Amino acid sequence: DVSTIDSKSSHRTHTFPGLVNVAAFVPGLAASNSSDFIDATRASISAGFTTSIIIPQAQGNAVVDRATLETAKSNVVGSAYCNYALSLSASADNVQLFDDELKAEAKALFIPSRIANKPIPLSAVAAHFSSWPTEKPILTDAKGSDLASLLLLASLHNRTIHVTDVQNVDDVLLISLSKAKNLKVTCDVSIYSLFFTREQFSSAPFLPSQEDQNALWKKLDMIDAFSVGSSPYKLAVEAGDGGSPSAGVEEALPLLLTAVTEGRLSLQDITTRLHDNPVQIFGLPDQAQTHVEVVLGRRAPLVKMFQSWSPLGRSLVSGAIHRVIVHGQTLFLDGTLLELPTGKDISSA
Amino acid sequence: DVSTIDSKSSHRTHTFPGLVNVAAFVPGLAASNSSDFIDATRASISAGFTTSIIIPQAQGNAVVDRATLETAKSNVVGSAYCNYALSLSASADNVQLFDDELKAEAKALFIPSRIANKPIPLSAVAAHFSSWPTEKPILTDAKGSDLASLLLLASLHNRTIHVTDVQNVDDVLLISLSKAKNLKVTCDVSIYSLFFTREQFSSAPFLPSQEDQNALWKKLDMIDAFSVGSSPYKLAVEAGDGGSPSAGVEEALPLLLTAVTEGRLSLQDITTRLHDNPVQIFGLPDQAQTHVEVVLGRRAPLVKMFQSWSPLGRSLVSGAIHRVIVHGQTLFLDGTLLELPTGKDISSA
Ligand SMILES: [Zn+2]
Ligand SMILES: [Zn+2]
Ligand SMILES: [Zn+2]
Ligand SMILES: [Zn+2]
Ligand SMILES: [Zn+2]
Ligand SMILES: [Zn+2]
Ligand SMILES: [Zn+2]
Ligand SMILES: [Zn+2]
Repeated sequence: DVSTIDSKSSHRTHTFPGLVNVAAFVPGLAASNSSDFIDATRASISAGFTTSIIIPQAQGNAVVDRATLETAKSNVVGSAYCNYALSLSASADNVQLFDDELKAEAKALFIPSRIANKPIPLSAVAAHFSSWPTEKPILTDAKGSDLASLLLLASLHNRTIHVTDVQNVDDVLLISLSKAKNLKVTCDVSIYSLFFTREQFSSAPFLPSQEDQNALWKKLDMIDAFSVGSSPYKLAVEAGDGGSPSAGVEEALPLLLTAVTEGRLSLQDITTRLHDNPVQIFGLPDQAQTHVEVVLGRRAPLVKMFQSWSPLGRSLVSGAIHRVIVHGQTLFLDGTLLELPTGKDISSA
Repeated sequence: DVSTIDSKSSHRTHTFPGLVNVAAFVPGLAASNSSDFIDATRASISAGFTTSIIIPQAQGNAVVDRATLETAKSNVVGSAYCNYALSLSASADNVQLFDDELKAEAKALFIPSRIANKPIPLSAVAAHFSSWPTEKPILTDAKGSDLASLLLLASLHNRTIHVTDVQNVDDVLLISLSKAKNLKVTCDVSIYSLFFTREQFSSAPFLPSQEDQNALWKKLDMIDAFSVGSSPYKLAVEAGDGGSPSAGVEEALPLLLTAVTEGRLSLQDITTRLHDNPVQIFGLPDQAQTHVEVVLGRRAPLVKMFQSWSPLGRSLVSGAIHRVIVHGQTLFLDGTLLELPTGKDISSA
């Protein structure tokens, strides 16, 4: 443990390993010539996330086949600031499009809860489960009984599954029951789900109710990972901001560190859910000499590098990123990002 | 095999063992002083069903606790024409009401898909799974992703579950996947679902589409039992008949026998799904010297003992009940029921 107390002030510093955002949302992910993916990696590294696992669903564009995967890769190749992994998104009719080569190029299979508000037919989901390589993860953002269907299929196929953006106490219950019966299921909650509610932000059904949020905090030991997810983007859009690829990324660690200073979380809780478990769940290569130095206990408004709307407004946080070091090189220091895109595609790693 | 060809005509007879309706619907089941339960057993025995397993959900009344179970029992005791078994219906808040004595008096636990169009909260369903005796069956009429939730819970609790009134090809798929992975799941289809569709009867969402009906016929080897279920009652209500406890009961065997004469079913298919499998799934006591003699191949309109609306109208069927014998005594012969209520409560048998 390398925490130190600054002798001249009440704040202290702490060093994390390079953190992982297990569910990064990039609005123009597979839109031709979009710079969103690059911007997302800039925000990511500046926020301490040295690895981003990208949700392959975006704003009307998704990675569903060879062409969309190529488009997404070409949007970022050579210009990424953090390491990133791309996955394929299942649809009702694309199981035959996934040949061995394409599967090898993807980190995971994402089974979206709903496409255009319709669940994928069960027969198609079952076909995906049967054909997806057993050594590669399957993830989903399914909720409620859609989630139950997927957990059943995972159980029947004896497959691991990671559930992203858990919001609801019933879903936590399903997952914990499944874990208790040795089903290989893991899950994350979006960091915004721990700090913002649909009572605070009307027309934000992608945030939990206050009651569900309380339950999420109580069941934190069932939560394997924290993620940024898509809710910050959706909340920014609801707020009239238009939504940026950096939405919620800069807020993530300051929110969690503030909870540490309030005694609601430990630093180890963060390391476990933003590094150790993500590395294990997604089989990520270790990043040597990579760490994130943070300061805790200095109450101040969030300093944003990216000029986008934030639900924090002028409220104070008690944590900030001081420095981000990747492979021994300082890429971010006190609000300044080194313009050196050293991120790599680790989809096949 | 005791089939014989009548030398003077083209029809033949066949003798079944006493048949079981695994899902009998009684509209006034737990309504005080209702005669529906007695009427249902009269219709049942006249139709060849010497045993009725009663769905504990009815028309605004359900068997959910000690009082409703007592009311249902008192409605029929000493006046039943066929053997009958009662079950308890799960709700969001009745798991604590089921003490050991009450559980011992019930054949099974029924988990209704929805109560007032809302699914039972998963935590309540999980509590029911945990507390219901392992040797007693659990049944449900859940569909779609509600069904997936229950199959998952059954799998997690290593419990057998019987799914009644399967209508949808996706549900058959879920069940057959589960069977393939050795989950202890069985299912029935309502006989009306094999012969009537929502295309034929508008405003009958409780009937399958023509496409789903075709799929049910194709997947018949996945179907463990046939039932009467609640769809005949609902269809009669839709037709403006008001609905009677005999709805669909008299139609059941003639419809199936007609399918035999058309080569779509074998007599063994019927015996398997209306006797052998029901006895096995529900652990029913065998009824000695009990059988049902039918006539096949004589095309005629259905002769109804009970003057209720029928979807058959004046169309012809090729099968009829000739005689029903229970414990060596003829209780029904050529349209006449012996007014001798010898049925017993086999809920605890
Ligand atoms: Zn420390
Ligand atoms: Zn590491
Ligand atoms: Zn350092
Ligand atoms: Zn500094
Ligand atoms: Zn025969
Ligand atoms: Zn028998
Ligand atoms: Zn006989
Ligand atoms: Zn006769």
